[in-house]
Amino acid sequence: MTDSRPKTLLAMGADTAARLITGPVRDRLLAVADIDPGLIATDFADPAVAPALAEAEVLLTSWWCPPITADVLTAAPRLRAIVHAAGSVKHHVTEACWERGLLVSSAAAANAEPVAEYTLAAILFAGKRVLDSARLYRERQDRPDLDAMFPGFGNYRRTVGVVGASRIGRRVIELLRPFALDVLVADPYLNEDLGVAHVGFDELFERSDVVTVHAPDLPETRHLVSAARLASMRDGATLINTARGALVDQDALIAELTSGRLYAVLDVTDPDPLPPGSPLYDLPNVLLTPHVAGSLGGELARIADLAVDEVARYARGLPFAHGVAAEELATSA
Amino acid sequence: MTDSRPKTLLAMGADTAARLITGPVRDRLLAVADIDPGLIATDFADPAVAPALAEAEVLLTSWWCPPITADVLTAAPRLRAIVHAAGSVKHHVTEACWERGLLVSSAAAANAEPVAEYTLAAILFAGKRVLDSARLYRERQDRPDLDAMFPGFGNYRRTVGVVGASRIGRRVIELLRPFALDVLVADPYLNEDLGVAHVGFDELFERSDVVTVHAPDLPETRHLVSAARLASMRDGATLINTARGALVDQDALIAELTSGRLYAVLDVTDPDPLPPGSPLYDLPNVLLTPHVAGSLGGELARIADLAVDEVARYARGLPFAHGVAAEELATSA
Ligand SMILES: NC(=O)c1ccc[n+]([C@@H]2O[C@H](COP(=O)([O-])OP(=O)(O)OC[C@H]3O[C@@H](n4cnc5c(N)ncnc54)[C@H](O)[C@@H]3O)[C@@H](O)[C@H]2O)c1
Ligand SMILES: NC(=O)c1ccc[n+]([C@@H]2O[C@H](COP(=O)([O-])OP(=O)(O)OC[C@H]3O[C@@H](n4cnc5c(N)ncnc54)[C@H](O)[C@@H]3O)[C@@H](O)[C@H]2O)c1
Repeated sequence: MTDSRPKTLLAMGADTAARLITGPVRDRLLAVADIDPGLIATDFADPAVAPALAEAEVLLTSWWCPPITADVLTAAPRLRAIVHAAGSVKHHVTEACWERGLLVSSAAAANAEPVAEYTLAAILFAGKRVLDSARLYRERQDRPDLDAMFPGFGNYRRTVGVVGASRIGRRVIELLRPFALDVLVADPYLNEDLGVAHVGFDELFERSDVVTVHAPDLPETRHLVSAARLASMRDGATLINTARGALVDQDALIAELTSGRLYAVLDVTDPDPLPPGSPLYDLPNVLLTPHVAGSLGGELARIADLAVDEVARYARGLPFAHGVAAEELATSA
Repeated sequence: MTDSRPKTLLAMGADTAARLITGPVRDRLLAVADIDPGLIATDFADPAVAPALAEAEVLLTSWWCPPITADVLTAAPRLRAIVHAAGSVKHHVTEACWERGLLVSSAAAANAEPVAEYTLAAILFAGKRVLDSARLYRERQDRPDLDAMFPGFGNYRRTVGVVGASRIGRRVIELLRPFALDVLVADPYLNEDLGVAHVGFDELFERSDVVTVHAPDLPETRHLVSAARLASMRDGATLINTARGALVDQDALIAELTSGRLYAVLDVTDPDPLPPGSPLYDLPNVLLTPHVAGSLGGELARIADLAVDEVARYARGLPFAHGVAAEELATSA
């Protein structure tokens, strides 16, 4: 039985809580949940959270929530649902949670949006050689002849390959619709028509001017972007990775980038962050960002809004709009 | 009377012709026009072009076409139409052409697209502090704490101000629709509802997190982006200028950028290109590109396609789809 305002406990990193649970979010939360917004479970063994854990029907989690182990569940006999105000639930929703039949919701859909936006901008800038032209202009203090340097460049009738029809991959495909770009998608699990050409991985790497990686990090996706596939990419093509570093054979990529044959936009690496001294920090044909494509700053409000909506649905006895099933985890992020 | 394949002469820079009149464009042109695609009028006084000029019904022009003066018109008694495979017609279509009643078409609509694409990518990267985060990561070789440095940043519920409901400004407004951004537009000539808030210039500069300039360069738009309006912008806001350098009080902008208070993305400057040693080359909070937002490389095909379509319309006795009227010039690019 759900109470009209279910007893809810926050569980996440202290910094995350400070950034996520802003004034407006707290007000919305208090309206739908029986919650102490000042109490954050950063460690489930902390005696200070024991009473709230013993009563909690909902855990509202986010980044740095500790794993919800069998012991935690024993201390939380009334727990019915986990609402995750972040992306993947794999790090904290343990096997024990699924066995107990907990309902799970994730804000991965809201977290997909900024990653897709970053990717769209990276695709448009890559096709146009915008960062190259800025660098050359700065170095020469005179206009470079880009047409001579990059014959036929630009965002007209070029090919963009999307690896993985994931939440983010699908949103990227949507955002690319207004442009005169041919889009390819590769994903062994895709069995719908997304209105773009569905091809195999090898064909995608050979044909694309820009390849953008949006598959989850799984044992079978490790080094999906292999040395051979990198070698098959067109001269001057760009690899964008906002997924996870493990999907790319990074040594092979560094070799292609050092030769100057390819470009890369990397928001994630292996390891992440990179160790000091990595050649990726200094290559002129790499835009390297410190894992920023996901929700940050004001973008956390989108995630918090989705999570509060999910708590409200639970309170009204409705199924989650963004429910996660255990079976999905083997093929998702 | 239009012939079914009107006698047509190419008039533009030699480099421009080499890049614009590619194989497929030449084939399409030959199908609709009686043309020697190897003859380029780079100088109307050149005796080698005199016979073709004397016969030409259509001039197909592009960048670096010399002015079509009264003398040129005297040498071109059969001329009826100018089809411009580029943006503004102001540099070559003289008063004498309008007096003679020539029909004029421009590919400015096709040239608007890449500028709008560049702008969209610049807006998304600016809101997300992508280039800042790349620079900081490179400098520190460790993850910077962006949330602490840029409280509330990101592309969620931020405000973008579009200066000028021009072709490019309108396309930018269209391209911004999928995002959770509030859009303002300022333009004294706008009298339609574009589905975004129409405000005055002062309000736009005060309220926007990103201001993007798309008005034409006219006497009354000189320094439209004035010192006072720059001073009224929010701390950390970004000015994007892909229009013309003259629209911005560049000294005032340099002062704001040197203090680090504002960011800028500048594809155009005053003068353009900048002289060596300009501080704009080295400021870390400036993305400076060498006038690349318009059509370049493979993007010229979009312009050529539009121009060939216009010649085909003329040949069939249809009005231009992208006709230009003399009256528009006082308020357009
Ligand atoms: N950079 C960031 O800040 C950031 C933020 C969020 C997510 N991510 C990463 O982005 C990626 C996509 O995240 P998401 O939430 O859209 O993923 P998701 O959970 O929606 O992905 C699941 C889908 O991936 C596809 N897939 C599964 N196995 C595949 C394979 N072997 N090859 C190709 N496609 C396969 C299937 O279509 C599956 O349905 C993940 O790697 C995630 O970790 C990064
Ligand atoms: N960077 C590049 O490579 C590049 C390429 C193409 C165009 N441009 C520049 O982009 C700008 C826009 O070009 P366009 O073809 O879209 O312009 P346009 O000819 O469509 O602009 C005309 C419109 O501008 C608006 N306008 C006129 N006076 C104004 C004023 N005082 N304040 C605000 N708005 C006013 C009106 O709506 C008018 O209809 C121009 O400055 C043009 O030179 C730059």
